[in-house]
Amino acid sequence: MKQILLIGAGKSTAVLIRYLSEKSLEENFKIIVADKELAAAEKAIQNHQNCSAVQFDIFKPEALEKHIASAAIVISMLPARFHIKIAKACLKLKKNLVTASYISAEMKALNAEVKKAGLIFMNEVGVDPGIDHMSAMQVIDRIRDDGGKMIMFESFCGGLIAPESDTNLWNYKFTWNPRNVVVAGQGGVAEFIQEGKYKYIPYHRLFRRTEFLDIENYGRFEAYANRNSLDYREAYGLDDVLTLYRGTIRRVGFSRAWNMFVQLGMTDDSFKMQNSENMTYREFVNSFLPYSPTDSVELKLRHNLKIDQDDIIWEKLLDLDLFNPKKTIGIKDATPAQALQKILEEQWKLSSEDKDMLVMYHKFGYELDGDKKQIDATMVCIGKNQTETAMAKTVGLTVGIATIKILKKEITTPGVHLPISREVYKPILKELQQNGIIFKEKQTNYLGYNAIGGVSN
Amino acid sequence: MKQILLIGAGKSTAVLIRYLSEKSLEENFKIIVADKELAAAEKAIQNHQNCSAVQFDIFKPEALEKHIASAAIVISMLPARFHIKIAKACLKLKKNLVTASYISAEMKALNAEVKKAGLIFMNEVGVDPGIDHMSAMQVIDRIRDDGGKMIMFESFCGGLIAPESDTNLWNYKFTWNPRNVVVAGQGGVAEFIQEGKYKYIPYHRLFRRTEFLDIENYGRFEAYANRNSLDYREAYGLDDVLTLYRGTIRRVGFSRAWNMFVQLGMTDDSFKMQNSENMTYREFVNSFLPYSPTDSVELKLRHNLKIDQDDIIWEKLLDLDLFNPKKTIGIKDATPAQALQKILEEQWKLSSEDKDMLVMYHKFGYELDGDKKQIDATMVCIGKNQTETAMAKTVGLTVGIATIKILKKEITTPGVHLPISREVYKPILKELQQNGIIFKEKQTNYLGYNAIGGVSN
Repeated sequence: MKQILLIGAGKSTAVLIRYLSEKSLEENFKIIVADKELAAAEKAIQNHQNCSAVQFDIFKPEALEKHIASAAIVISMLPARFHIKIAKACLKLKKNLVTASYISAEMKALNAEVKKAGLIFMNEVGVDPGIDHMSAMQVIDRIRDDGGKMIMFESFCGGLIAPESDTNLWNYKFTWNPRNVVVAGQGGVAEFIQEGKYKYIPYHRLFRRTEFLDIENYGRFEAYANRNSLDYREAYGLDDVLTLYRGTIRRVGFSRAWNMFVQLGMTDDSFKMQNSENMTYREFVNSFLPYSPTDSVELKLRHNLKIDQDDIIWEKLLDLDLFNPKKTIGIKDATPAQALQKILEEQWKLSSEDKDMLVMYHKFGYELDGDKKQIDATMVCIGKNQTETAMAKTVGLTVGIATIKILKKEITTPGVHLPISREVYKPILKELQQNGIIFKEKQTNYLGYNAIGGVSN
Repeated sequence: MKQILLIGAGKSTAVLIRYLSEKSLEENFKIIVADKELAAAEKAIQNHQNCSAVQFDIFKPEALEKHIASAAIVISMLPARFHIKIAKACLKLKKNLVTASYISAEMKALNAEVKKAGLIFMNEVGVDPGIDHMSAMQVIDRIRDDGGKMIMFESFCGGLIAPESDTNLWNYKFTWNPRNVVVAGQGGVAEFIQEGKYKYIPYHRLFRRTEFLDIENYGRFEAYANRNSLDYREAYGLDDVLTLYRGTIRRVGFSRAWNMFVQLGMTDDSFKMQNSENMTYREFVNSFLPYSPTDSVELKLRHNLKIDQDDIIWEKLLDLDLFNPKKTIGIKDATPAQALQKILEEQWKLSSEDKDMLVMYHKFGYELDGDKKQIDATMVCIGKNQTETAMAKTVGLTVGIATIKILKKEITTPGVHLPISREVYKPILKELQQNGIIFKEKQTNYLGYNAIGGVSN
C-alpha cells in the first residue's frame, strides 16, 4: 500500500488527517503521521482508518530519510523554516512534497532540480496562502478568457470569531497565533498601488486607513493594508494593473481600537521593559504615559489619545481589565508586545464552545469591450468546534486535496509551485466547493475609488 | 619643538586650529594638520602660525605611524568609526589621543592597556558629548560636596539658528548634518525615568511629548526626548536618581510641525520609493495619502492630519513648497527620509550671513537638609560667521583646551576617559568660560513635575 508521510502533528492537522483517512479507503493508501513527540502523533491520528503514528526528529537525517524513502508523497505541516530540510531530503529520494507555507528563497532555488527530477513541490496550498491564490486566479483567468483586461485586484482575508461566539466589545478572539495578531503590520511600510499611484502607509497609521467590506448575511467588516501587496503582481501576471491591494479583515471598529495600543507603543517588540515580571497591568499602561503626581492613569490615557467621554473604544479598554492595579504581567524581560499579548490572551481566549470564522473577499476590476466592470467574490467558513475549526478545515482540506491529486497524478507539472495554474486550482476548488468552501460572486459596475461619484465640487 | 598631530581637516576644525595656533606661541609647539586631501589640510591651516599641512591616508599604516611617531599628542577629528585605528597606533607608539566622539566598545576595551602604558585617551570632549558632561558633573559634584543627594537630572541640548538669522516659520535651519535631523529619534524607543517610574515613548509619539524650557534673554524653547537617557546613569553615578531625562532642544512649535512628517511616514529611512528620481514634491506627498479621483493633495493632507484651517503648521508646509507639482526629488532609489531631506535642504539652508546658535539646559534636583531644591544651568553660544560657528567654537575650543592641558601635563590620570572627573572638567570649563562659553545658574525650589501644584481636585 502506498504511504503518505505527514510530518508535524500540530492542532491544525485534525481535519487534514480525517480527510486523508476517509480518502484512504477508496484510494487504498496508508497515512504515517510523524512528530517529534510520539504522543502528539498518536493523539492526532485518533482511531482513524489506515493511520499510524511514528516519532522522529527531522534533525536526525537517517530517521528522516528512512521515513521519506517509504512514502509516496510527503506533507510538511512543520513551521515554515523547517520545510527546506524536508524538501532537500525529498529531492534526494525523489518524492513529491506539499506545504501550506510561503515559498522561501531557498525553496524557490530548488526549482530547476525539482523539475529535472520530474517532482512536484506544491507550496502555499493552505488557506492564506492557498485558497486566496486559487480563488483569485480562477476569476482572473476567466476574465481574461472572456477578453477582459484586469485593472484592479484587491484581496482581503481574516481569521475571526463566528457571529454566534462573538461575545466581547472587540468582536475578536484569538482563533490563531496570538503573537501574529499583536505584531501584525510591523517590520516595514505597507506598499500598494491605487489607480496607478504608489501608496505607502507607515505602521503607526495602518489601523487608521481601513476600508469597509460588506458580506451578505454577515454584515460589515473592515480591512487594513498588508505589507506585501506588490509581491502578487508577478505571480498573478498583474504587472500593468492600476490597483493592487491586499488587506486583513477585522470586524468594524477593531482597528480604531487596536490603534490605541499602537499609538501608546504597546505593540513594540523591539525592547525589553524594566521589571516586566512584577509590573502590574496598570503600571504597564502608565509606563507609556507622562508622569503626574496627581492625575489618574485613566485620565492621562484619555487625554493622551484624545478619547471622548462617550467613545466606545474606552469601554474596550475596560473590557480588557487594562487598568488593574493587582494583576501582574509575570513575564521576565518582556517586550511591550509580549506583555500586551498576556493581557489580551486572558480576555480573548476561546471558550470550549466557541467557533471561529474565516472570511475572504476579492475585488476584481476589469475592462471589457470599453466598459469598466467589477466582480466581488466572497467566502465565509465557520468552524464546527475547537478541533474542526474553520482554519483547520480550510488549510487541512486544501492540503489534503492537493496531496491526493498529486498522488493520483491528476496534477502532474513538475517544479516548485504555488497553486496558481488551472491544472492545480480547478480540481482543488471543485472539491473544496463540494465540502462547503464556496465563493459567492457578485457582478457590478466598476466602483474603484469613486465612492462619492467622482465629481469635484 | 613638540608637535600636535591633528587628523581630519573638516569644516568644524577652523576654531580648533586657530586656538592651537595662538597657544603655540606661548607654549612653543607645532601643529601638523593631516588630511586625505592635501588641499583640505592646506585650506584648514590658512596662514596660522606654527601650522603645516600634510597629506596621508589612515588606511596606509606606515604613513599613519610615521606621523604619529613624531607627534607629542594626536587629535582625531575624523568620523567616529575611524578613531579605533588611530587609537591602536597611538597605543603602539605611546602617544596620547583626544577625540570629540562617543567612546565605542572597541575604544573602551583598550582601557587596561592605555592605563598600563600611562597614556590618556580623552574622548567625548566636544560639546555634546563634551561640555554637557563637564558642566553637569561640575554641578553634581558641588551638590554632593555640600551634602546634597541628587534626585533629578535633566539635560537638553540643541543646535539651532541664531535669533538674528531666524527667518522662516519653522524657526530652524540646518546648522549641522541634515540627515541626523531628518532621522532623529529613529531606531528605538525613548526610555527614561520620571520620579522613579520608567517611561517609554515610541518614535511616532516623540514629537508630541515635548516640554518647554525658558532661557533668559532668549525666550522659550521646547525639547523632545532622546533615546538613551539611561546610559548616563552609570557614568554620572546617578544610579538611584528618581528622574533622568535627556532631550533635544528646538524652538517652540517645531516638534508639532515636524510630527506631520513623522505621521505621514516621510521620515522613514527603511525602504526605497518607486520612481523617486522623477517624482515631484507633490507626488511625494500624495504617496502617503489615500487615492482620490477628485480631492486635492492639500485637502487630503489637511483631513488626514486633522489640520484646522487657521493652524500655523499648515503655513509651515507651504513655506517648504511641499505641494509643488514641478520640482522633482531627483534622487534615484530615495528613501522617504532622503526625499524629505532634499526638500528641506532647499528651504533650510544657511545664507552666507547666517549665524548658528548652540543651546544647553541642565536641571539638577536634589535634597539637602530635608529640603528639595533645584538648580537650572543654561548656556547659549552664538556663532560669529559660517566658519566660526557656535558648533565649531564649542567643539574646537573644548578639544583644543583638553589637548593643551594633556600636553602640559595638567591632566595626568591615564586611561580611556570621558571628561567627568574634576581633574579634567575644572580647568577646561574655566578656560571655556574665559572664552565666553558660560553657564548661568538659577537656584529654585524643586519643581519636579508639580507644575500645577500637585493638588488633585
